[in-house]
Amino acid sequence: MPNNRRSAAGRRPRQPDSDARGQLLDAAIALFAERGIANTTVAQIAAAGHVTPAMVHYWFDNRERLLDAVVEERLAPRFRAVWEPADVEHGEPREVGQGIVHRMFDVTAQAPWLPSLWLREIVNEGGLLRERALRHIPVVKKVAGFGQNIARGKRRGEINKGIEPQLLFNSIVALVMLPQATAKIWRRINPTLTLDRATLERHVTVLLMHGIADGSAAAAGRQHGRSGSTS
Amino acid sequence: MPNNRRSAAGRRPRQPDSDARGQLLDAAIALFAERGIANTTVAQIAAAGHVTPAMVHYWFDNRERLLDAVVEERLAPRFRAVWEPADVEHGEPREVGQGIVHRMFDVTAQAPWLPSLWLREIVNEGGLLRERALRHIPVVKKVAGFGQNIARGKRRGEINKGIEPQLLFNSIVALVMLPQATAKIWRRINPTLTLDRATLERHVTVLLMHGIADGSAAAAGRQHGRSGSTS
Repeated sequence: MPNNRRSAAGRRPRQPDSDARGQLLDAAIALFAERGIANTTVAQIAAAGHVTPAMVHYWFDNRERLLDAVVEERLAPRFRAVWEPADVEHGEPREVGQGIVHRMFDVTAQAPWLPSLWLREIVNEGGLLRERALRHIPVVKKVAGFGQNIARGKRRGEINKGIEPQLLFNSIVALVMLPQATAKIWRRINPTLTLDRATLERHVTVLLMHGIADGSAAAAGRQHGRSGSTS
Repeated sequence: MPNNRRSAAGRRPRQPDSDARGQLLDAAIALFAERGIANTTVAQIAAAGHVTPAMVHYWFDNRERLLDAVVEERLAPRFRAVWEPADVEHGEPREVGQGIVHRMFDVTAQAPWLPSLWLREIVNEGGLLRERALRHIPVVKKVAGFGQNIARGKRRGEINKGIEPQLLFNSIVALVMLPQATAKIWRRINPTLTLDRATLERHVTVLLMHGIADGSAAAAGRQHGRSGSTS
């Protein structure tokens, strides 16, 4: 029997797959992202991880502990990877924003299951990871600090006056995560849609970086080349 | 007994609440948006509409017909209201985009249940309105036409080169709908967040309109006022 039952808690996020427990956790997450937590049984998790249901119980005690492990060992490190590498409260606001976008794409490239799990189980009313995620992930303070930074940039004239600092992180999440979480339905609406990371990241970055830039330079440029359009 | 059992199909979207059947449909939709279709019973719908369960069956035969009515009588008119008032294929691209955003805010102001129903039952894998919505709502052609219009604007230099025309409608939906669909969780993350329509619409419009604008005017303005920033 494995003797590392509890040793995983402090493990670095870079080595999560080095044992059978980690592989089982990943198998569970893949099922949760694909069909939802409520629609996934322990037997299915065991089958996907090539172990017996008893092993699932051995490693995770019960469903609640398994969900704790999903949040603490797989989601929290990804949230930290988005927020921690930069001083989101004091860095140059547009650079900080661009960094958050880029790291969010890094994280979803490493964890392709993240956008649908996020949509299904955190964002959705009744999502089974929402309370855990809010409890375990110190995102509230980071979001507030980022908003205050954007607000200061706005007062200094670096950020467009029409931008609402407290809504910007929400907009970033929407632009980065929703298309990835809903890729299947978008491909049905538009079969030729390209949703590779490079295309999506370029599009989102341009939209956000031009979108939040102070409009006065652009306005000056438009005045210069004004061609009779109103609105 | 009411004698208008089948007359509702061709009714104009502006007069949907003029009878008990319409009120019952609205009561059902409010419950669906709040707790999800799968978690709502006919008995709950009847109670919310102040009728007997037999009346729900009288008007809608069964659950499938009730869901058809939700899509055909309540969702489809809203989708049409977003797409039909403009020539999204040939109008001036930025004006068309701004019009779509504005009408999407109009529609969600009239139907505050729409964003959560959209997220829960259309966008979500396993959403119980997805197939019906794709079948009944001619959004595929409109989305494609809008994308082609943006692509032509990009070739003419009116739209920023970094924008992916086929992703723009996805971005609009994400920016307009997600914050409204997830207002509850965002208010928990940030209790001071303002999510009234005026604030959200201004923020989203600025982000999108500046975001998709050709960058050369802004670039010229920036060169003019260059202040040593790189990135």
